[in-house]
Amino acid sequence: MARGLNRVFEPGAVAVVGASADPQKRGHIILKNIMDGGFAGPVYPINPRGGTILGLAVYPSLDDVPGPVDLAVIAVAAPLVAGVVEGCGRRGVAGAVVISGNFREAGNDDLEAELVAVARRTGVRVIGPNCQGIARPGSRLCATWPLMKDPGGMAIISQSGTVGAAFALWASAEGLGVSAFVSLGNRCDVDESDLIDFFGGDAATRAIALYLEGVRDGRRFMDVAGRVGREKPVVVLKSGRTASGRRAAQSHTRSVAGRDEVFDAACRQAGVVQAGDVEDLYDRAKALAMLAPPRGARLGIVTSSGGSGILATDAAAGAGLDVPALGAGTVAALRAALPAHCIAGNPLDLTGDTDAARYAAAAPLLREEVDMVLLIFGDPIPGACEAALRVRDETGLPVAALYLGGGEVEAPERCRLNRAGIPAFTTPERAARALAAPAGWARRAGLFSANEGSGAR
Amino acid sequence: MARGLNRVFEPGAVAVVGASADPQKRGHIILKNIMDGGFAGPVYPINPRGGTILGLAVYPSLDDVPGPVDLAVIAVAAPLVAGVVEGCGRRGVAGAVVISGNFREAGNDDLEAELVAVARRTGVRVIGPNCQGIARPGSRLCATWPLMKDPGGMAIISQSGTVGAAFALWASAEGLGVSAFVSLGNRCDVDESDLIDFFGGDAATRAIALYLEGVRDGRRFMDVAGRVGREKPVVVLKSGRTASGRRAAQSHTRSVAGRDEVFDAACRQAGVVQAGDVEDLYDRAKALAMLAPPRGARLGIVTSSGGSGILATDAAAGAGLDVPALGAGTVAALRAALPAHCIAGNPLDLTGDTDAARYAAAAPLLREEVDMVLLIFGDPIPGACEAALRVRDETGLPVAALYLGGGEVEAPERCRLNRAGIPAFTTPERAARALAAPAGWARRAGLFSANEGSGAR
Repeated sequence: MARGLNRVFEPGAVAVVGASADPQKRGHIILKNIMDGGFAGPVYPINPRGGTILGLAVYPSLDDVPGPVDLAVIAVAAPLVAGVVEGCGRRGVAGAVVISGNFREAGNDDLEAELVAVARRTGVRVIGPNCQGIARPGSRLCATWPLMKDPGGMAIISQSGTVGAAFALWASAEGLGVSAFVSLGNRCDVDESDLIDFFGGDAATRAIALYLEGVRDGRRFMDVAGRVGREKPVVVLKSGRTASGRRAAQSHTRSVAGRDEVFDAACRQAGVVQAGDVEDLYDRAKALAMLAPPRGARLGIVTSSGGSGILATDAAAGAGLDVPALGAGTVAALRAALPAHCIAGNPLDLTGDTDAARYAAAAPLLREEVDMVLLIFGDPIPGACEAALRVRDETGLPVAALYLGGGEVEAPERCRLNRAGIPAFTTPERAARALAAPAGWARRAGLFSANEGSGAR
Repeated sequence: MARGLNRVFEPGAVAVVGASADPQKRGHIILKNIMDGGFAGPVYPINPRGGTILGLAVYPSLDDVPGPVDLAVIAVAAPLVAGVVEGCGRRGVAGAVVISGNFREAGNDDLEAELVAVARRTGVRVIGPNCQGIARPGSRLCATWPLMKDPGGMAIISQSGTVGAAFALWASAEGLGVSAFVSLGNRCDVDESDLIDFFGGDAATRAIALYLEGVRDGRRFMDVAGRVGREKPVVVLKSGRTASGRRAAQSHTRSVAGRDEVFDAACRQAGVVQAGDVEDLYDRAKALAMLAPPRGARLGIVTSSGGSGILATDAAAGAGLDVPALGAGTVAALRAALPAHCIAGNPLDLTGDTDAARYAAAAPLLREEVDMVLLIFGDPIPGACEAALRVRDETGLPVAALYLGGGEVEAPERCRLNRAGIPAFTTPERAARALAAPAGWARRAGLFSANEGSGAR
């Protein structure tokens, strides 16, 4: 259930139990990131030693804090955690994010059972234990590390703190961000299904991305993901798919990986998108969060680089998209609009001497023949972002971009494109595979227009 | 044949025919990059208008240049190119890189035939036409765009200028470089087989990476690649693998893609490594250029991030590597050397509180049980590079690294690792798949130790 999670992700006040003055300790790093993240409400460091940390007065215990607290981040020794959560219950704290490890993952099942019992009895929602925290940039809450501040449309739920953090950092590095980051840890209380449920109803979240080593409750996962997935894309990367990977997963979080065929079938049935690797998880979630569902699977490719166009075509076809040849009328219109050395087809090759204006003039001519457009900029091309926005506005179609071979211009231009709502990618194959995600989702969700799928195209 | 290519890639003097004062023109951009790349010998801009460009005296024609010229870069209108190459012959120029387009790719087969005839008659080696130039950082020669200055172990040969340039830029961005970059263009004279032959004998080149839309002479490709590939890894990405991709490839360079099964079988027979996409081409070439061939296929994974370890394990197993469980003696030694909460297996999970010293202490204990090591740093971990070098020195094994979730530290640390000779990757799957490349190559080259491949491991 999503009960109580509103106050966890939009807290008015936060306590850090086990706050530390030692910059190496997690109880310090998280406190500092909460401050550096610009959290607007009161932040209460808790440590029996008292004093001040990062200029904040330290309270000996939760009971001493002067105001109400919604969220407690806990980084104390494992045997003390249940007592702290008990105290959270007394103080009306809605949720506890337990960073501390040394629970079930280290064989201390008794400590974890005690923690679960306290959570049940008090009604405090527990994230973790043995987790890397949470971030909610829209609430300016960064109770994790490294620092995550940029808001965006993807919610990241990860059984590995590092994998989730990497994901959030990639987003930030390319001008995007996340609606939330949640490190599940041992998920003794809050699990992936609770969070899919919660972010399914969260307006800031446009796609939900999960890294899982196993599902805690298969039936509930299918119910929730199946329901949420009709309205909002859910993408999952599940590890432990090989014999050695399963062995590793069992050592890591004591996840029982279950049979992959069962998980795969469940995902298909629930409409959950499965990713092949972490990059694929990222690319698909990004495309799903940023692009409106297309009305069909026909992709138009407009490129300055012939080779990149071919690679994108191969990858698109491999991912279930159609890169249709163009009708005679469109080819004639392109020939009339373009210099003679351009190749009026699909891919539409504007060739290496193109400027941005040529994209803006030519791409809209594909409007009736394709359902989405990939613009490939294969050199530094000034005005690429403006041209992409014009193509989007004039066609009304989902538009993505690929920028490569652009030297120093490339990374800042990708950021500009991403910030303007045009998802920008780094390789032809990643761009094409990512574009297949919204198309696949729209098809499953019944959003393709009636005439889609006829072999005639 | 590699005839004449020495002087092309190590020229004493360069002429740019069609040099331009207009910063938008290729005849300007290339001249500027030759200067900015630090070319040490004379550079002669050629343009009938004379004057100076970028501070250099412009000569009306090649005949007016005062000294010998080894390489001419040609960026004049297509109908003038054959005449310029004729002049190159007169002046004893060894090679011409023809940037100009509007030849066979635009239907002007006659112009291209004339160019070929002149090349044959004069003995001038022609790269292109319709190409993006060449770079040879070791000779401080950058006759292409964007600017490529960083020397490294990979030779890049590409039928797409943009794809090749993207590749070189990726290398440069992560602290690596290339031994050479060659944009093939229409390959009217010099083709991929000539270049494999040439770079096969080039001491600076440790791996040869090719992007091809088709092979010009299949039998010769097999002969040359088969011979060179025994001594030096050759990795190929071939596009036009789907029906729509083949259609696009034929429009682009008029390559006849041929049947993929034939190409695939030829590659297998010649020992050529095939890449799945451009990232894969890059990652494999990087691993092959940087790592000594391992003595077997057993991978040891040492990680601070359990999840990343599992993902790497899955990907390694999928790519044909073995991530063996460890023997009881090694497990005991690890338990004695490590804190109790570490997971003494393979992956060896040092857990999130690890420092660099723990990697240096633990990884060498795997020495007898694995043939190569992947170190995964899943947080900012000071001293990661030094620890990786110690692991390499103490084990004598090929060592690669993965750095992710490290925030601001991550990109500079990856550069440091790469520069120190430890190939560093960005995702668990890319790292594991890349490591499979040297193992696969060593197996084919018969370099695995005699007891390799026993099912017992």
